[in-house]
Amino acid sequence: MTQGIADVVESIAPADCDAMREARERLDALTKPRGSLGRLEELAVQLAGMTGRVRQRMPSKAVILMAGDHGVVEEDVSAFPQSVTAQMVKNFLAGGAAINVLAKNAGARVTVVDVGVAADLAQHRDLVIRKVGYGTANLAAGPAMTVEEAMQAIEIGFSCVDQELARGVDLIATGEMGIGNTTASSAIASVLLGRPPSEVVGRGTGLDEAQLSEKANVIERAISLNSPDLCDPMEVLAKLGGYEIAGLAGVILRAASEQLPILLDGFITGAAALVAARLCPTAIEYMIASHCSAEPGHRLVLEELRLKPLLDLDLRLGEGTGAALAMHLVDGALAILNEMATFEEAGVANRADYA
Amino acid sequence: MTQGIADVVESIAPADCDAMREARERLDALTKPRGSLGRLEELAVQLAGMTGRVRQRMPSKAVILMAGDHGVVEEDVSAFPQSVTAQMVKNFLAGGAAINVLAKNAGARVTVVDVGVAADLAQHRDLVIRKVGYGTANLAAGPAMTVEEAMQAIEIGFSCVDQELARGVDLIATGEMGIGNTTASSAIASVLLGRPPSEVVGRGTGLDEAQLSEKANVIERAISLNSPDLCDPMEVLAKLGGYEIAGLAGVILRAASEQLPILLDGFITGAAALVAARLCPTAIEYMIASHCSAEPGHRLVLEELRLKPLLDLDLRLGEGTGAALAMHLVDGALAILNEMATFEEAGVANRADYA
Repeated sequence: MTQGIADVVESIAPADCDAMREARERLDALTKPRGSLGRLEELAVQLAGMTGRVRQRMPSKAVILMAGDHGVVEEDVSAFPQSVTAQMVKNFLAGGAAINVLAKNAGARVTVVDVGVAADLAQHRDLVIRKVGYGTANLAAGPAMTVEEAMQAIEIGFSCVDQELARGVDLIATGEMGIGNTTASSAIASVLLGRPPSEVVGRGTGLDEAQLSEKANVIERAISLNSPDLCDPMEVLAKLGGYEIAGLAGVILRAASEQLPILLDGFITGAAALVAARLCPTAIEYMIASHCSAEPGHRLVLEELRLKPLLDLDLRLGEGTGAALAMHLVDGALAILNEMATFEEAGVANRADYA
Repeated sequence: MTQGIADVVESIAPADCDAMREARERLDALTKPRGSLGRLEELAVQLAGMTGRVRQRMPSKAVILMAGDHGVVEEDVSAFPQSVTAQMVKNFLAGGAAINVLAKNAGARVTVVDVGVAADLAQHRDLVIRKVGYGTANLAAGPAMTVEEAMQAIEIGFSCVDQELARGVDLIATGEMGIGNTTASSAIASVLLGRPPSEVVGRGTGLDEAQLSEKANVIERAISLNSPDLCDPMEVLAKLGGYEIAGLAGVILRAASEQLPILLDGFITGAAALVAARLCPTAIEYMIASHCSAEPGHRLVLEELRLKPLLDLDLRLGEGTGAALAMHLVDGALAILNEMATFEEAGVANRADYA
């Protein structure tokens, strides 16, 4: 592990229990039956723990969308050609993709990071070009990345968070684009969860039954060929992952070290979060599971991380779309703590007075 | 049934299939794998069917919050005293309650309707005073309302929707306040679903185990005493319901007759929706189930209506809070249809081209 990564991992502190208790007390004093806002209240308490602040301004929000290509597309694991990764990056920059629409709706900016797209992309105000390579190698024929490449991508994730921090952002959502990346994510999840690929794998952007079973075979082969040490998350990431997955692991770790809440999106983010959690379990305290996707592996990853998704809408698009939708719930949770009247302020009889 | 109610029921037309097909076609042409936005796409199709428009401006939104009191509080079925209904109405008008905070966050106005609070309330810009009575009678000792009162409350619901329409509102959410109203709602649900009160009843704002069982007994007694004809939803509503529940049934029916999507909130709204659906099954096509509450009866009601809730956050507050949270998903679904680029516009290879 580089010194940079070790330093970030080292600096991740547990959530602030005092702020959580204070948030709980405030929630109980507000004009509603105790706990009646259910998971919105839990989210409010978590946010207080992450940031150390009970009442805070509405967050300035950003989606960090990491894009990279995957050599494993040689194995016909995707319903779309590899060229779509670069085409979609252009679509993101032109504002025409689902994430643009949903991020705008949530008041969030979108930063796109080319961490390894297999094509040269033109400069753009909203594009950070930090290519580690032109797509990973085919994980079914050897390691997808070297450990050095994986660490480089993680550190790119760090610097992307630092850039957002410098802009005053205080809530980050993860997003990704990369044709073939559900295969890489499934391979990581399979190894780190100790489950066969057939239990983890899903249809991605639209495989049929036969293609799905072939995808599981490809992953099986990749794991047996690379035989990564399951106790070494960096090795698992390097051998089976992708540049954008490593980059997102970096985003998550850095956000946690800066006490920033991090909204996880779908299955690819989930694989990155699993790697981050194995590198530093405390990082989980800064993760918010925005939704549970239609990819079967995602639910298993969230269970392993003991994260309960806020939304369950059968999304399977990625890009950060589920995280963008969940931003409204974060805003709602914070607004409740900030703006509601207490029983005392409103002159409403509290249950405690009545009992 | 009054002529006014019969006319509204008569005028509710099925959703527009052509608009739904057109919305589906547009969704499939947008730059994302088909169906990959899951339930957000289903919602977009439903909204097109309700309004007859595939692409539409972001809706102007209102929460109609009906407040009323319940004679059944004599039976000690609530953790809060009856006076809290009026106190909370004042809190709504002062902007300090959860619904104020969440509606503001969703860009929605809140109209409060006193359809039967057991206290005189001062005039206020955001308060419509249309009292049918000062609280219903105790349903455990006789009918809660006369059929005439129930119909009067339904027609008040109609006029509230008409008032919002005149303001240019095109998305309405239901909300309510009324100490004791989970008891009335449970009684209605029990009869109309044909299930024993013990399966339907929940803790409301915070009953303990013994109080919960006593609440089921009270409802059992109320049903056996009133013995409403389960094939006559108006009689069930009158004998077991409440002014605000009847008012909300009116809001739902009128919204449906005007092709307005109606965001249902929690269990009390669910009981009103069940009555509305029995009066006119086609009205269900205009209902959006915003969430599933922690009250066990709510899930049963939604199953009966074949509505799948968008959110599942263990809310049990009412007021329209779940509906306000779901407004963001409606905005998201409409924005996807309006703002995303097609494969052709963005120059992205479609799966169909590739296959």
